[in-house]
Amino acid sequence: MSKELVFGHQNPDTDAIVAAKAFSYLQNKLGYDTEAVALGNPNPETNFVLNYFDEPTPRVIKTASNEVDSVMLVDHNEFQQSVSDIKDVTITHVVDHHRISNFQTEQPLFYRAEPLGCCSTVIVKMFDENKIEIPAQLAGLMLSAIISDTLLLKSPTTTDQDKIAVKTLAEIADIDYEKYGIEMLKAGTNVAAKSDQELIDSDAKSFTMGGKSVRIDQINVVDFEDIDNRKDDIKNAMTKEAADKNYDLFLVLVTNVLNSDSKLLAVGEPLDAVEKAFNAKFADDTMPLPGVVSRKKQVVPPLTDALS
Amino acid sequence: MSKELVFGHQNPDTDAIVAAKAFSYLQNKLGYDTEAVALGNPNPETNFVLNYFDEPTPRVIKTASNEVDSVMLVDHNEFQQSVSDIKDVTITHVVDHHRISNFQTEQPLFYRAEPLGCCSTVIVKMFDENKIEIPAQLAGLMLSAIISDTLLLKSPTTTDQDKIAVKTLAEIADIDYEKYGIEMLKAGTNVAAKSDQELIDSDAKSFTMGGKSVRIDQINVVDFEDIDNRKDDIKNAMTKEAADKNYDLFLVLVTNVLNSDSKLLAVGEPLDAVEKAFNAKFADDTMPLPGVVSRKKQVVPPLTDALS
Repeated sequence: MSKELVFGHQNPDTDAIVAAKAFSYLQNKLGYDTEAVALGNPNPETNFVLNYFDEPTPRVIKTASNEVDSVMLVDHNEFQQSVSDIKDVTITHVVDHHRISNFQTEQPLFYRAEPLGCCSTVIVKMFDENKIEIPAQLAGLMLSAIISDTLLLKSPTTTDQDKIAVKTLAEIADIDYEKYGIEMLKAGTNVAAKSDQELIDSDAKSFTMGGKSVRIDQINVVDFEDIDNRKDDIKNAMTKEAADKNYDLFLVLVTNVLNSDSKLLAVGEPLDAVEKAFNAKFADDTMPLPGVVSRKKQVVPPLTDALS
Repeated sequence: MSKELVFGHQNPDTDAIVAAKAFSYLQNKLGYDTEAVALGNPNPETNFVLNYFDEPTPRVIKTASNEVDSVMLVDHNEFQQSVSDIKDVTITHVVDHHRISNFQTEQPLFYRAEPLGCCSTVIVKMFDENKIEIPAQLAGLMLSAIISDTLLLKSPTTTDQDKIAVKTLAEIADIDYEKYGIEMLKAGTNVAAKSDQELIDSDAKSFTMGGKSVRIDQINVVDFEDIDNRKDDIKNAMTKEAADKNYDLFLVLVTNVLNSDSKLLAVGEPLDAVEKAFNAKFADDTMPLPGVVSRKKQVVPPLTDALS
């Protein structure tokens, strides 16, 4: 059996990096020959996690077909979020927790998706189904991914299965997950250290909705002031990026991870569709979105509806 | 939780009907409210299976959105193979064993596909993972689906997991699966009861290969004589259908399900490419294809190569 690469989406977050490591570990135990890699460098939160558990940073790849014939995707499926030459390789496995879109194969494959808060939670179930033990260090990583994706189990994407997985993993890793989780989330919100360009790029994903090219970034903060102070500069960077990359619409969801509220910044068109999507108005270039913390569950679906 | 419909593809075969019943049973045990329905009437083989196990014929639906908001798909995912108003309902679950194509959702969903010989084999695994017992009658149905899809485990699509599932289900159903399987496959091959038009249409699929429009039908028999006796009439029907529908090439793969051999009938052009594809010659309008039983794995790929 020839070697396969396992990776999460571009602009990797903690789940994208960790799910690749976890699924690669599981598949190797099941007899495959895989290597977990990444489509970008870890963000500050993920670096905190990797350092905390003394885990090496994964190798970053730009293309896959120069190395392997086949790949396994975790935490994404849409081709525009994947490796640049995804159409030149065979996708043998996908494990995910997102909608399915802009994805197709020529051959039957293994595809496992569940509407859970975190891809790593799906993988926890697969360890159990295959009766493979999760090592303590990997449990710590997977715990971190679930805390990251669910904002410490507070996001509306959180399911009972995520809660059960966190408790199971915390026991295996022997860690106080609430205390650790706040420390970890804070480590990921140091926006002062980032340039405007880094801020609008580091967690951004591209979508096609009703024929429009839509870019949606999310920035986690512990105080909205950190962004409000530099809003004009950030909007200028968004406008430039949208022009360079031909995005019709560029949205930045600024999320306060401590109180689970967000604000939305937007450039491009059609802004009236964005207002319709959230039944709210932009004021001073900003739309308050109280209670919104999940791009996947609370932003993408209403926006897709409004643009279709 | 509101009721959901569970169904397989249009022109249902035994797996499409049975997988819907099996997945509906499993989901109801897990707390969902579902009904297994079908997108067409059962074929003769499936009728034999339903009669044998005293199982009611599923209700046939033409549309879903007039009854429910949400549906679960089994044994297919491509929208053109699904219910006519698939875009007007939410797909919450898919269980399948095919490639993924022309499929997308707005929301995260449960998707479980594995490259196995039969969708019902995937569902057998899910019963095990969820620690739900398979009742004897349902085991008999699922056994039938696997025998149907794999031609009694002889098709090259057969995996070790299909073989294990057949043995497990045969024990639960308390049945001699080889003896029963031959009886069941024979029941599906009553070609005498079908018109020439029905024969060339009932399992036909269209493909585009190297710019040519290619139609490939498959007819299962227990004796090649059944087709040899009416070969001229069948070829006339093929010629007429190819002219009516603008097929460049119309192939009918006649498969003897008892000894796992096939013969190929062909009308249209280029026949030399067909001969090249299988490294064999037409004689008396017929090409023998010993050991060939799978259109998907043994006919489409070499023909695609030869026509490209």
